[in-house]
Amino acid sequence: MAVNLPPLGELAPVAGVRLATACAGIKQRRRDDLAVIELARESAVAGVFTRNAFRAPPVILAEERIRFGNLRALLINSGNANAATGAGGREDAAVLCGHLARCLGGDCRGESVLPFSTGVIGERLPVDAMRPAIERAVPKLSPAGWKDAARAIMTTDTAPKGESARIEVGGKSVTITGIAKGSGMIKPDMATMLAFLCCDAAIAGPVLQEMTAQVADRSFNRVTVDGDTSTNDSFVVCATGQAGNAEITGSGPAFEALKSGILAVARALAERLVRDGEGATRFVTVRVRGGATESECVKVAYTVAESPLVKTALFAGDPNWGRFCMAIGRAGIEDLDPDAVSLALDEVVIARGGLVADDYDEASAAKVMERDEFTVDIDLGRGACSDAVWTTDLSYEYVRINAEYRT
Amino acid sequence: MAVNLPPLGELAPVAGVRLATACAGIKQRRRDDLAVIELARESAVAGVFTRNAFRAPPVILAEERIRFGNLRALLINSGNANAATGAGGREDAAVLCGHLARCLGGDCRGESVLPFSTGVIGERLPVDAMRPAIERAVPKLSPAGWKDAARAIMTTDTAPKGESARIEVGGKSVTITGIAKGSGMIKPDMATMLAFLCCDAAIAGPVLQEMTAQVADRSFNRVTVDGDTSTNDSFVVCATGQAGNAEITGSGPAFEALKSGILAVARALAERLVRDGEGATRFVTVRVRGGATESECVKVAYTVAESPLVKTALFAGDPNWGRFCMAIGRAGIEDLDPDAVSLALDEVVIARGGLVADDYDEASAAKVMERDEFTVDIDLGRGACSDAVWTTDLSYEYVRINAEYRT
Repeated sequence: MAVNLPPLGELAPVAGVRLATACAGIKQRRRDDLAVIELARESAVAGVFTRNAFRAPPVILAEERIRFGNLRALLINSGNANAATGAGGREDAAVLCGHLARCLGGDCRGESVLPFSTGVIGERLPVDAMRPAIERAVPKLSPAGWKDAARAIMTTDTAPKGESARIEVGGKSVTITGIAKGSGMIKPDMATMLAFLCCDAAIAGPVLQEMTAQVADRSFNRVTVDGDTSTNDSFVVCATGQAGNAEITGSGPAFEALKSGILAVARALAERLVRDGEGATRFVTVRVRGGATESECVKVAYTVAESPLVKTALFAGDPNWGRFCMAIGRAGIEDLDPDAVSLALDEVVIARGGLVADDYDEASAAKVMERDEFTVDIDLGRGACSDAVWTTDLSYEYVRINAEYRT
Repeated sequence: MAVNLPPLGELAPVAGVRLATACAGIKQRRRDDLAVIELARESAVAGVFTRNAFRAPPVILAEERIRFGNLRALLINSGNANAATGAGGREDAAVLCGHLARCLGGDCRGESVLPFSTGVIGERLPVDAMRPAIERAVPKLSPAGWKDAARAIMTTDTAPKGESARIEVGGKSVTITGIAKGSGMIKPDMATMLAFLCCDAAIAGPVLQEMTAQVADRSFNRVTVDGDTSTNDSFVVCATGQAGNAEITGSGPAFEALKSGILAVARALAERLVRDGEGATRFVTVRVRGGATESECVKVAYTVAESPLVKTALFAGDPNWGRFCMAIGRAGIEDLDPDAVSLALDEVVIARGGLVADDYDEASAAKVMERDEFTVDIDLGRGACSDAVWTTDLSYEYVRINAEYRT
C-alpha cells in the first residue's frame, strides 16, 4: 500500500563506518533483526529522542551515553521495543551493549555502545538469544553493510529505507548515508521511528548536536501518519572525521554545507516514512500560508493532517470543504478570521474568503484527489509566514494493520 | 453498529412547549427534516455553542439572539449545515426565522426565533423549499411532538435520541425533556451535535445560562468519538416557567435540584451520542485517577480516547499496554513519572508502577475487551484528582461511513 515509495538505491559506504546484521529470532525467524554499526575512534555522535514520558530504557541509556561521548558502536534490534520494562529493561540493554563491546574488543567498553530497540512494548528482550546473534554479526562487519542494516531494523515497514548523498565541505568530498524505519506513529516528538545517519566529515560533538536538532525540526518533525508518538523514537547522526576537512567548530559556510547535505538525506528518509505510512493510499502535503507566525502555520497544518474526518475524505477522494474548514477552525488560533481563509487542492481553488469559490468545479477537485500525491494548500490570509507537513490518508488498511498488529 | 443504544422511551410533554415537523426535502425526501419548537411567552433560554473559528451563520445568529432574550421559537433543519455560507447564509437563516415568526403570528418577530442547522457544509439552504415546509409544520404544533422532532434532526444517527425526567424543585413537580442528534465529531467545544432541552421550571435567564454552561462541561464536553469538532454544535436549554415554582434567581437548593435534573438528562443524551458513534462497536469509559489536577486527568483521558492506535486496539480487542502508555506519555504532562502509572481494564490490572503487572494474564484482559462496554482505568499516581470521558473504538465501519458520507 506504499505510495510511490522509491526502491532502495545504492547506499554509499562511509569511511570509518562498518555494519553487520544477524538473526536473533526476536520476532522474525526468517530475516535478520539485529544490526551493529561500528564507528571509527574519535567519531562525533549526536541524537534527538522522543519526548514521550514513557521513554524506553534504551532511549534513556543512549541519550545519557551521547552526553559522555567517546562512542564506538550502535546496537539496534527490531521486534521488541524494550519499552515499559523498567530497571530490568535497562539492565538488559546495558548487558547487551557490554557484550557487543567485548566482541568488538580493543578498548571498546559497554558505555561506548548505544542501544536502540523497536517493536512490541512491555516485553523483556530475549537476551540469551541476542548474545549469540551479536557474536555472529561482529565478524561480518563491513563498510558495505548498509542495505542489510536497513532491512534488519524494519517492523511494519513494507520496504527498507535508505539514502546517500555526496557533498563538498571545505573543499573535501563528504559522503552521507542514512537508514530509517517507521511507518506508523510518525509525528513531531517523533514516533516509532529510528533513523541513523553517518558521514565522514570532521565536526565537533556539540556542534553536530546543534545541527542534528535543526535538521530533525525540518525533516522528521514535519511528517505525520496518525499523530501518535512512540516511546523509542531516535534520530542519530554520526561523523567519523575521516573526510579530511578542517573540523567544523561552529557556524559558517562549512556548517551550512554539511547541514544542507544531512537535511537532504533526512528529508528523503522522512518522506519515505510517510510514503510507507500504514495503509497509505495517498501522499499529501498540507501547506499553510498567510500565517502570522510559522508556528501557527504548523499548528493548522497538523490539525488538518491529523483530523480523522479530513483523512477519511482524503481516502475517499472527496473534496469536502466543510471537513477542511472544520479542522482549520479548531486548530486553536483565537482570532482567526474565517472570511480570510482560502483553500486549494493543487491548482483547483475550492474556497476563497471563507466561501466555496464561485468558479469551483467539484469534478476538477475530485480529479486532483485521484492523484497519488497532491497538496492541500491553505491560506490563512493574516500574514506572510508559511510551513508544511506531509501526511497520508486514513484507509481500511490502516485499521486492519493496527487491529491485527499483535494478533 | 450502535452499542447498546437504548430505544427511544416516552418523552414527556413540557408545559409551554409545542413541537412540529415537516419534510422540506433538503436531503431526505422520505422523512421530515425540519422541526419547529414553540415556547410560551416569558420563557428563559440559554445556550452553549461551538468554539470552532468557522462557526456557521445560524450559530452566530442564535447566540446573538439569546443575548437579547424574548425568544419564542427554535427552527431546526437537518441535511444542510448552512455553514461556510457567509453573509448569504446569514440572510437565509434570518429570512426563514422571519417566515416562521409570521406563521406563528401574534407578536412573534423574526428576532424571537433561533435558527439551527446540521448536515453538509458549504451549500446554501434551499430556502424556497423550506418556506412551505414551515407553513405545513406550524398548524401541527403539539405538546406531543418530541419524538417526531428527535427524528427530524437526525443526520448519520442510526436512531433518534431523547430523554425525559421528572424532579421536584421548590416543592413543585418539574418536567425535563430533551432531544439530541450527533454521532460523529463529538468532543469538547462540541461537534456536529445539537441538543435541545426544555423544562417548565421558572428560572431567570442569566442563571439558566450559568447552569447550562456547568451542565455542558459535565456532559457533552466529556464525550469524544473522533476528536473532530464542528461548525454548528449547539446545546440549548429552555425553561417555560409554568411549573409554578418560585423563580430561581441564584444559587441554592432549587438551583442545585434543577441542575442535577438537567445534568441527568444531558448525560443520558451525551451517552447516547457516543453509543451511536460512527462505526462504534465498543462503548468505552476512559477514567483517569491519581492526577494532580482535574484538568490534567481530562487531558490524559482525551489523549488516550482519541489516539488512533488505542482506538484500533479497542476495536481489535487487543489489551496492548504499549499503546496505552504511548498515549499517556504524549499527553503533555511535563513531569509525569512513568514508574507511578497503573492501568486496568475493568477488574483486570495490566500494569502497575509503569510495568506490566506480575500477575497479568493477557487472556483475562482480552476477555474484558470482548465486552460491549468496559472501563480503561488509568492511575497517574501523583494526586487525588480524577475525571473520565466516554468514547468508542475505531472500526472499518468508521472509515466506510466517513469515506462515503457525501458520495
